[in-house]
Amino acid sequence: MATSPEYRRDPVTGRWVIIAPERASRPLGLADTKPHARRNIERDECPFCEGHEHDTPHESYAVRTPGTAPNGPGWQLRVVPNKFPAVRATADSDLKSTGELFESFPGFGVHELVIECPFHESSPTVLTDGEYARVLVAYRERIRTLADDPRFAYVTVFKNVGAEAGASLAHLHSQLIATPIVPDAVRLELEAAGDYYLGERRCVFCAVVKAELAGRTRLVAETAHFVAFCPFAARFAYEVWVVPKRHASGYESTSDADLLELSGLMKLVLGKIDSALGDPAYNYYLHTSPARIRDLPYYHWHFEILPRTSRQAGFEWGSGCFINLVPPERSARDLRAAEIRPDIDILGR
Amino acid sequence: MATSPEYRRDPVTGRWVIIAPERASRPLGLADTKPHARRNIERDECPFCEGHEHDTPHESYAVRTPGTAPNGPGWQLRVVPNKFPAVRATADSDLKSTGELFESFPGFGVHELVIECPFHESSPTVLTDGEYARVLVAYRERIRTLADDPRFAYVTVFKNVGAEAGASLAHLHSQLIATPIVPDAVRLELEAAGDYYLGERRCVFCAVVKAELAGRTRLVAETAHFVAFCPFAARFAYEVWVVPKRHASGYESTSDADLLELSGLMKLVLGKIDSALGDPAYNYYLHTSPARIRDLPYYHWHFEILPRTSRQAGFEWGSGCFINLVPPERSARDLRAAEIRPDIDILGR
Repeated sequence: MATSPEYRRDPVTGRWVIIAPERASRPLGLADTKPHARRNIERDECPFCEGHEHDTPHESYAVRTPGTAPNGPGWQLRVVPNKFPAVRATADSDLKSTGELFESFPGFGVHELVIECPFHESSPTVLTDGEYARVLVAYRERIRTLADDPRFAYVTVFKNVGAEAGASLAHLHSQLIATPIVPDAVRLELEAAGDYYLGERRCVFCAVVKAELAGRTRLVAETAHFVAFCPFAARFAYEVWVVPKRHASGYESTSDADLLELSGLMKLVLGKIDSALGDPAYNYYLHTSPARIRDLPYYHWHFEILPRTSRQAGFEWGSGCFINLVPPERSARDLRAAEIRPDIDILGR
Repeated sequence: MATSPEYRRDPVTGRWVIIAPERASRPLGLADTKPHARRNIERDECPFCEGHEHDTPHESYAVRTPGTAPNGPGWQLRVVPNKFPAVRATADSDLKSTGELFESFPGFGVHELVIECPFHESSPTVLTDGEYARVLVAYRERIRTLADDPRFAYVTVFKNVGAEAGASLAHLHSQLIATPIVPDAVRLELEAAGDYYLGERRCVFCAVVKAELAGRTRLVAETAHFVAFCPFAARFAYEVWVVPKRHASGYESTSDADLLELSGLMKLVLGKIDSALGDPAYNYYLHTSPARIRDLPYYHWHFEILPRTSRQAGFEWGSGCFINLVPPERSARDLRAAEIRPDIDILGR
């Protein structure tokens, strides 16, 4: 019986899963089916607050006040290995297929947490644009470093806000998992976008961005270089994609200036979602090109933001087809109209 | 802005969604994010209880005591149109592609409820084998009838138990949605199984059944003609598939005798899940061959049962790769050991 993490491939569909028995021992673990408030662990006990650096493994990246020592106070952002990782950096990275019906591989990978601020806050909207830009820069720097390792094929960056969205700790954080496989969702997008390019000789994301900017019915907000819109075939009410207007396949090439601009737009969109839906739980994740594959003409990095406004039920699981009760045109109209609450730029420190 | 249901195809991945604005008016609707007990609506108010037939649209199929009139009391099982359907039988069934970036089609389809018993119960395990076999027969009869209509490509049969699994009414029921499209999850399975068959000249499901029966580490239970096991690459803790041992691509060809046998096995597996996990919310769904496509050598119908033991979070949404904390070998061992509670065969009437 598996006791260390494993990648397993479904013999029918070929889809990957990670079997991670060790992760069951994390706080909440299997029992995390009860909702709890966003701010569920008090400041005194929170392992992510400044002064509690001994509660986390050693940092792999940090933004620090000059002169402060690693793994102590004096930081503005820290990236640390997850104490309860889904995959292990110490596992064998060999994924050679045997062609057998049941194939499994050691659960090699890196699972890190981006602790986004030293103070006990739970919503990205409390950060200043500059503070949130540091988070977006940290994603880029960790992708650059990890993607340089030839054993990795992809780095998945994601964020869970609220217990309904799978967050077990309230203190502002994102996660990233570097894997020796390109995950199925990204592979399907790459394949479909590649097919579109062969037929149409243009990037499908560029075509979508152009159409959304022209039509404007699904537009939520835009800046000079980025656009936020509710996608035409949104799976969820108030689903939003944030996409660079210019073609760019890899997030890791984005400049500091562009990430600062993106920071303002992401905060605006998340603030509008909070205000329109009353601080819902949500997930967001980054889709970008695989490690070391640069300048693809047919792929285009972007964030997808999924508010947890409904549950996936038997029909969605069985069919893979989502039922969305709110047309994206209405979601976009509501989000355009949503006023950002006046408190969100006031830091609660 | 869409006000009637629509199928929309995602311009990037080609995945289908159903935009169903009318369905937002059903009980709970958008607000169904709060957990509630399985038995949430009292007998007096329940539209599915015997004597409340006026609260549901006219039945399309029923098992009745001889001499009783349709849409009145005297039934053992009823199939009725969903009052808040995701798709509409009155919509245009034309799905001709225009090749445009944003394609949508009228939300044509049939969305029905299988009311599984006249009394107010919420767990299939309270039914006798014969009563539950009627449910399995009703699935078959409705698939046969709906799949005869050339406008339909597929009938998705599914069940939600518990609010966490998306159930808005407690009274025992399943659902089915007949669509002019083959849903993505089934299409992917068909394509992958077809590829496997071309290479290996055997049905991949038959190969899996043979291997699970030989290995026995993931076996949960079996009868003469059916086997229940935790799949090798299970996405969820305690996920179980129930599969006929003999090759059969279409559920609709299953005999009454086989469905009675299957009924006992399904009840046993669901009873073990209830007992091992403390009455969790769960979904199950049927995967079978598309409408009017009979005797495929490479496809094999089966049920997939998904206990809602964990939440899908940002990593799963972003990567399509599930993290399962309980190896299926352990899930199967726990389910084999789980004693069915003595009360489950006692009808609570």
